Amino acid sequence: MTQSLLQDIKVTKTENSKISQVDFNNLSFGSTFSDHMLVCDYKNGTWEAPEVIPYQPISLDPSSKIFHYGQSIFEGMKAYKDENGDVFLFRPLDNFKRLNISAKRLAIPELPEAFFMEGLKTLLEVDKNWIPTTQGSSLYIRPFVFASGKGFHASPADAYKFIIATAPSGSYFAGKVKVLIEEKYSRSANGGVGYAKAGGNYAGQFYPTQLAVAKGYNQVIWTDDNKHEYIEEAGAMNIFVRINDSLLTAPTNDRILDGITRKSIIEIAKQEGINVEVRPISVTEVVNAAKNGSLKEMFGAGTAAVISPISVFGYQGTDYTLPELDNDYASSLKKRITDIQYNRSEDPFGWRIKL
Amino acid sequence: MTQSLLQDIKVTKTENSKISQVDFNNLSFGSTFSDHMLVCDYKNGTWEAPEVIPYQPISLDPSSKIFHYGQSIFEGMKAYKDENGDVFLFRPLDNFKRLNISAKRLAIPELPEAFFMEGLKTLLEVDKNWIPTTQGSSLYIRPFVFASGKGFHASPADAYKFIIATAPSGSYFAGKVKVLIEEKYSRSANGGVGYAKAGGNYAGQFYPTQLAVAKGYNQVIWTDDNKHEYIEEAGAMNIFVRINDSLLTAPTNDRILDGITRKSIIEIAKQEGINVEVRPISVTEVVNAAKNGSLKEMFGAGTAAVISPISVFGYQGTDYTLPELDNDYASSLKKRITDIQYNRSEDPFGWRIKL
Ligand SMILES: Cc1ncc(COP(=O)(O)O)c(C=O)c1O
Ligand SMILES: Cc1ncc(COP(=O)(O)O)c(C=O)c1O
Repeated sequence: MTQSLLQDIKVTKTENSKISQVDFNNLSFGSTFSDHMLVCDYKNGTWEAPEVIPYQPISLDPSSKIFHYGQSIFEGMKAYKDENGDVFLFRPLDNFKRLNISAKRLAIPELPEAFFMEGLKTLLEVDKNWIPTTQGSSLYIRPFVFASGKGFHASPADAYKFIIATAPSGSYFAGKVKVLIEEKYSRSANGGVGYAKAGGNYAGQFYPTQLAVAKGYNQVIWTDDNKHEYIEEAGAMNIFVRINDSLLTAPTNDRILDGITRKSIIEIAKQEGINVEVRPISVTEVVNAAKNGSLKEMFGAGTAAVISPISVFGYQGTDYTLPELDNDYASSLKKRITDIQYNRSEDPFGWRIKL
Repeated sequence: MTQSLLQDIKVTKTENSKISQVDFNNLSFGSTFSDHMLVCDYKNGTWEAPEVIPYQPISLDPSSKIFHYGQSIFEGMKAYKDENGDVFLFRPLDNFKRLNISAKRLAIPELPEAFFMEGLKTLLEVDKNWIPTTQGSSLYIRPFVFASGKGFHASPADAYKFIIATAPSGSYFAGKVKVLIEEKYSRSANGGVGYAKAGGNYAGQFYPTQLAVAKGYNQVIWTDDNKHEYIEEAGAMNIFVRINDSLLTAPTNDRILDGITRKSIIEIAKQEGINVEVRPISVTEVVNAAKNGSLKEMFGAGTAAVISPISVFGYQGTDYTLPELDNDYASSLKKRITDIQYNRSEDPFGWRIKL
């Protein structure tokens, strides 16, 4: 982080910092917002210069297309502070690339790399003191783009807003999760937008998730929309299944988000000598493995929750309980990835970026 | 429309009407907005009293869930003015019911009927002069609901806004449309949200539609996401196919919007003695009918475009041209439905509601 970046991007600082009101020892996830945000407007066919301004409300015409046609995409990443107060990002370029993959599918103009990367670094420099240091906490970073252009006509907007806002956050889930393997509802279609981080993919999950919660589960595991035969992913996590000593995860496709945690876990596991199989995982295979005792672990993997072990999965009215292991993959893989993220270990993969 | 309604719903009128700036003889679709809007907030577990206020920007926190998770739904309807200046709505209760069907699927709290119906009537009374009378034009009405509640957590919001805004509008499409039968991309999944008027369903169509436009088509005809074997619907229209003298349309299901124009056309056609078949329509059947000359017509049906005749459909690199008929169903059905809507004929079905 050098002075030059701050010179490139205009920064207007708040006169009323809220930081003294925040209890950094009791942070929930994504509900306290830092003092500043990066904003960047797309108008007349071009992305204008990004600026850092005080976190503040956005004013939009009622006909702005975000309200009507769901033209919105986002990313989720974190900034980590180590014991020396140095700040790190984890594979941020992959978030930038994925944002543009999402942009293309949602007919949103792609962003220049420098606007994203330099904008992010400038914002983090300005709000450095908002990055928490308590165990397990981090600064959750939310880059997002939405259609601000006007008109009640179902067609792409002519104006967009790119914003990065941040939220000092504690952990996403407390403890293990109970999941329900979905047999009726679906998250995404073949040829649809499931591989994009598009707003609409999330809203569609809320109702089926509420139904699952009413039955005592925390999360839904999505299956293919055709026959609900294969396990795909969870609400905001990719899914791993350990059968005997092999670690399985579904291949990404146009229905599944290409998670950065997922691909990092695959690489770390391989380096640890674990047999990793990236292939379709049928529900039948998982149920049979649960019955014959070869199913050892299931866990979700994503930026927000890191690794989230599953204690129970429900399917067709039956609950299957996962065993409690001493040397589980979930714990050791979580330690490996968070040690890299928080600069507590070597980074043989070159994933960590110092601000 | 009685005075009592205006007494029930608080009305704040604008001091700067824009109506004198509008050229009512040259209206495009959905891009000029009337002076007022209805707003209604959901907070603390309840929908608060709706109000009519001047059309104005909406101010939202950057973490409002509409920006991130696509939690939004809408409706599309029209107000028609007859020669005497009387104002009519077409099956408005069906739009209200569908809005609540969409709300349920998107985990949005359902609206009380009176808020929708009385709110709409009050708004139209206030902006009565915005309803155009030139041939083919009407006041397009856009009720919508979106998540205003805050937080970077993929879960339903705790606050929502219901708004009705209106736009005096000319016709949606000029002339016949060329359509492309989609073989790769999809609009919706089995078990997904395709039957809801959810924002995300529209954004996902923009990119495939852009690709079709680049090839010289106006619209995509969506097919099932599994094998792209069956014709489902178009961007904002249901699809009808005439083979010999039978009129075919796909049954609605969880991937297809239950269009009010579609179901009205089915009833009118039946009353006219046309053989109507509501059943899956395979692409193969349509292509074969085009080849052997039994394919007489194809048209889209929806509130915005009313009935939109198709001149050409493209499939697997071949364009199939529809014949020009003298006594086409599209024209006579369009006349029947618009005559009912604009109070130019009897309404044997009881669809028209006078304000
Ligand atoms: C649908 C979905 N799947 C998986 C993930 C995990 O992706 P990542 O590891 O890049 O955070 C996320 C969250 O970002 C997600 O929203
Ligand atoms: C996806 C979709 N299909 C069909 C329709 C037609 O429905 P209606 O006739 O109720 O306007 C619409 C438009 O409202 C639509 O958005």
